[in-house]
Amino acid sequence: MHPTTQLLENARERVTFPTEELTKLIYVNDEIYETFMKAQKIIANEPTIRNHPDYHNWSRKQQIIKSYEKLRIMHQHFNLANAVHWAPLLSIFQGTTPTAVSFAMTVPALRFLGTDEQFNLWGPKFLTMEIVAAYAQTEIGHGSDVQNLETTATYDPQSNDFVLHTPSVSAVKFWPGELGFLSNYALVYAKLIFNGKNKGVHPFMVQIRDNSTHKPLRGVTVGDIGPKLGYSTKDNGYLAFDNYRIPLNSMLARYVRIENGQFSRHGNEKISYASMMVSRQLIIFIYPRMAAQALTVAIRYSITRQQFTNDKREENSVIEYQTQQDKLLPRLATCYGMIFAGIRIMQLVDDNFHRVQKKDFSTLQQSHAILSAIKAFSSQWVVDTTEWCRLSCGGHGYAHYSGIPAVYFDTAPNVTLEGENQVMYLQVARYLLKVLQYAEKTPEKVPFYFSFVLHVKETLANKDQNTSLGHWLKLTLTIQLIQVGKRIKDLMNTGKTFQQIWNEHVGIHLMSLAQRYAEYFIYLVFQEYIANANPSVKEILQQLCDLYCVQTILDNPNTLIESGQITQEQLKAFNELKIELFAKIKPQAIGLVEAFNFNDNALRTCIGCHDGKPYEYIYDWATKENSVNKVPQAVIDLMGTKIKAKL
Amino acid sequence: MHPTTQLLENARERVTFPTEELTKLIYVNDEIYETFMKAQKIIANEPTIRNHPDYHNWSRKQQIIKSYEKLRIMHQHFNLANAVHWAPLLSIFQGTTPTAVSFAMTVPALRFLGTDEQFNLWGPKFLTMEIVAAYAQTEIGHGSDVQNLETTATYDPQSNDFVLHTPSVSAVKFWPGELGFLSNYALVYAKLIFNGKNKGVHPFMVQIRDNSTHKPLRGVTVGDIGPKLGYSTKDNGYLAFDNYRIPLNSMLARYVRIENGQFSRHGNEKISYASMMVSRQLIIFIYPRMAAQALTVAIRYSITRQQFTNDKREENSVIEYQTQQDKLLPRLATCYGMIFAGIRIMQLVDDNFHRVQKKDFSTLQQSHAILSAIKAFSSQWVVDTTEWCRLSCGGHGYAHYSGIPAVYFDTAPNVTLEGENQVMYLQVARYLLKVLQYAEKTPEKVPFYFSFVLHVKETLANKDQNTSLGHWLKLTLTIQLIQVGKRIKDLMNTGKTFQQIWNEHVGIHLMSLAQRYAEYFIYLVFQEYIANANPSVKEILQQLCDLYCVQTILDNPNTLIESGQITQEQLKAFNELKIELFAKIKPQAIGLVEAFNFNDNALRTCIGCHDGKPYEYIYDWATKENSVNKVPQAVIDLMGTKIKAKL
Repeated sequence: MHPTTQLLENARERVTFPTEELTKLIYVNDEIYETFMKAQKIIANEPTIRNHPDYHNWSRKQQIIKSYEKLRIMHQHFNLANAVHWAPLLSIFQGTTPTAVSFAMTVPALRFLGTDEQFNLWGPKFLTMEIVAAYAQTEIGHGSDVQNLETTATYDPQSNDFVLHTPSVSAVKFWPGELGFLSNYALVYAKLIFNGKNKGVHPFMVQIRDNSTHKPLRGVTVGDIGPKLGYSTKDNGYLAFDNYRIPLNSMLARYVRIENGQFSRHGNEKISYASMMVSRQLIIFIYPRMAAQALTVAIRYSITRQQFTNDKREENSVIEYQTQQDKLLPRLATCYGMIFAGIRIMQLVDDNFHRVQKKDFSTLQQSHAILSAIKAFSSQWVVDTTEWCRLSCGGHGYAHYSGIPAVYFDTAPNVTLEGENQVMYLQVARYLLKVLQYAEKTPEKVPFYFSFVLHVKETLANKDQNTSLGHWLKLTLTIQLIQVGKRIKDLMNTGKTFQQIWNEHVGIHLMSLAQRYAEYFIYLVFQEYIANANPSVKEILQQLCDLYCVQTILDNPNTLIESGQITQEQLKAFNELKIELFAKIKPQAIGLVEAFNFNDNALRTCIGCHDGKPYEYIYDWATKENSVNKVPQAVIDLMGTKIKAKL
Repeated sequence: MHPTTQLLENARERVTFPTEELTKLIYVNDEIYETFMKAQKIIANEPTIRNHPDYHNWSRKQQIIKSYEKLRIMHQHFNLANAVHWAPLLSIFQGTTPTAVSFAMTVPALRFLGTDEQFNLWGPKFLTMEIVAAYAQTEIGHGSDVQNLETTATYDPQSNDFVLHTPSVSAVKFWPGELGFLSNYALVYAKLIFNGKNKGVHPFMVQIRDNSTHKPLRGVTVGDIGPKLGYSTKDNGYLAFDNYRIPLNSMLARYVRIENGQFSRHGNEKISYASMMVSRQLIIFIYPRMAAQALTVAIRYSITRQQFTNDKREENSVIEYQTQQDKLLPRLATCYGMIFAGIRIMQLVDDNFHRVQKKDFSTLQQSHAILSAIKAFSSQWVVDTTEWCRLSCGGHGYAHYSGIPAVYFDTAPNVTLEGENQVMYLQVARYLLKVLQYAEKTPEKVPFYFSFVLHVKETLANKDQNTSLGHWLKLTLTIQLIQVGKRIKDLMNTGKTFQQIWNEHVGIHLMSLAQRYAEYFIYLVFQEYIANANPSVKEILQQLCDLYCVQTILDNPNTLIESGQITQEQLKAFNELKIELFAKIKPQAIGLVEAFNFNDNALRTCIGCHDGKPYEYIYDWATKENSVNKVPQAVIDLMGTKIKAKL
């Protein structure tokens, strides 16, 4: 057996829990698991789809062309209208998935904001891909601040239709995915001008390209916005309208309507949150799994990579170094919490949808708050984790052949898109302050995952050092919430307006508060999973949860300290406990990453394969798959003697 | 005036210090300043060199070709052998600088490790570029652990020469820059086998490509290692030898020699550190200036970007939000500290070189320790800062047109290359422990920048709350040093070996200790700069230094808390002080970034230009400079109706 294969096999033998029990938890149910396994296999076996080592040498144009070829093949194998089918694809092949935006954002918006007739008119055309539609909300000058969008849709009572117009450069739609090339329709958010009055921003289903030629229709300017940090195959686009007429039926009309020349509102507008929930929930569900890919590569590589000799004059696997464990093990622990939180949120959002469809809005706000907190927290965590995984692989981590840079490229935008993280956190903080008021006045209104506000006194009084680790997360959260509430009240008394205080005086505290809630929510879900888990994996899950808690406490102890809630001895004890947990989890690490069950192709790596051999594979790819090396004469002409001669 | 230009002009009017006084400090002396300004101007005016918005749409091959065309033009304008000339180029044009490795690493190694005859033989050929030579140390399986490199150079007494050989895949040289295409020579680090005995790793100057055809010589396998996260134009290469014969004179022979069939050592081998110092010092000097570029873009954009309305129903510049200030202002403050530290280190290294050349090694170790600490600290800080700058620009920060992703791409490798950061930190920690022993036994040996070890008792006893902010940095450093020393001693008493303890039990503490030293050193240099500064900028520099200190304390308060050295009230006071400093520094921010004096082309941005207009420029680039949009028919064929028809 190859020595690095042997190192991995030895590590696998030391794993003491049944990995398949964790796999079951990770993949929720048989349908999701089997679809994912099938997708992995199909992609590995299809030459057009499978990982192409040379991909990152290509121009964006080449990559985009490849991406559309992939779309055709994927369409043969998968039902791209079903998230269970296309969502896993996001993480296991190169480049983004064309039509993902159309299905994850535009279709749900159509379902929730359109009338049944409107959904029946357009919905089926998405399934056959007769329609691919971008979600055109963001403008060059306006992102999160939807109410200040500038694009106008002016109702014309003469012709009983709308004139869509882009009044300035800052009003140009900018960033919508799949707008640049792919979409022939767009769901355009525009300010409705009705009888000269601004009736707020609403969505309009607009055809932008010709059905037969796919050329932009007259009055429409549309294209790709240029290269980005990652997302090279995603045709994020720009879109401008020059007094472009669209029919009355374009406006999604479940909650606002123009009939017989009269404008009217119907039902609960809060529903507009609901359609954003689908895409945010997918971000939470999918992307921690991409961090899991990076962790798989990093843990395997850390076992096969040997560097510096130990006392026995043998080279050490780098996983043996405490500093390496510190980079990877807390993140591996958190990854499980993130994945479980993603599943739980999927269930919460699903439950909320069923309620909303029955006009029950009772769980809408709490779902939105949890979703916002975890969307922001998890998207930043995924990017950070991917970066630490890259760094833990030394130089080779910087090579695209490691598979890790691409994970970074394609997860980085999630921090900004679908609700910029900072904006999300501020919304969460606002909801937490509201829930605190419920606790005082209408405790029955406090939702389950926020019930910590009902126990403020008990939490603050609990000085028992043997309490669960989660207590410290709850305590930190509680203190920060009380403090920021008080701070706002104090500042109001100095004559400042609420808005001024919110923007200029408590932003840092609000951000921190929302993050503490996210941490606590993940802990709660972690506990639920441990309670319900198969006995054979309860211990390892508890260790992961403990490490998650300890690391979280040590990352942000200031609140506990400033409020005198923690002693020097307790902090020291947490530091020791962390090291003890490293010793327990390190031998299980290979099992913990292999429970994610990614095949080599899905990892897009040559340094973290199932059979090891990082050096053989990286040399193989560099010498055989690297197109830059394949034009020796041109290269010589340009970079060799001739250029020197000209110097 | 355009409204966004107006916003910038208004901000400039509020600046109360003379920016040119800071500019003088930043650029050290007239030669550096004028060379840089001239370089900026030349590059902006040369069509082949200046920023090309479409660059990031290109294939790696296109980018590399462009890069070599640039080399030719640069050679006309600049003396590429002089770091003052080529170093600024690293930060102000697209792609890496070809020949930078050759001049920054190979030439210094030749100077320090070669004999005068050897330097006279090859040195002049570098200046004419007859020789471009990679620095071939790292192997696929061996990075930082130089003593375990596998490549062998076996002395053949019959022919009085060496046989260079790559015995395994893990021994293949991998990662050296400019090796893939450009270099015709390489300085190869190999294990010298003399009379069957391993005489350690030494450098050999080896021709690898033919002088006239530039093809690899027989017995040499060489090429590019493939695509990476960034550095797309840098031809990091692989290199393998198959029993390749090289003449006796190949071995750099200032400190080891083979004469008359006898192997001998001469002088102080520590000198081998000296050549690495040049490249590390350049990393410290140059790259904080790239963070300064990202900060310039982010601060200008934060002034021109308006989002959400304030009490007066006007849109706020996002710089007005506390959360935005929190992302940018502490990093802007630190940036000044980093730049000053980079200059100071340049002077220390320079001084050390002069001593070493006179065989005075008295400052070698301290220079090496400071250099290692700041190389590691500053390289990670630059990457983090660039990322926060990107995020502070929302979606547009993710666009390459912002100029920020490319800064991230090209600064990220510095964390790993030229001394992997973790390895660097561990060396610093080792030196700190040694200096602590000096303090006890031979206090006269304690170097100036480490004199804190002479005042341990006073530092620990100083409870004065009105002490300078830097005190807390010194205190943290002192406590950590004492603690880790004690921890190692305690563990030794349990029977563990020093090496085991070092690798498996104190890694986290050692890393932290070294980081605390870096923080303290930056503070010391900051203070030197304030003391010597023109009175007109003393106040703003002191505010920056204060913010730097406060943020540093708040980022890592655990040590102070665990040791009972700080009270809850003090911590709270630091939080308040930080907010007060925000209020003082925010109106100066535009002056602080414009003191760096980058022109628009050097920033490679369209959202942070001198006259604002972010939306106009980004729309302009997207619609006019984006080649992906320029093949409408091919795009339509592939991505439009035809592909749908095939679905």
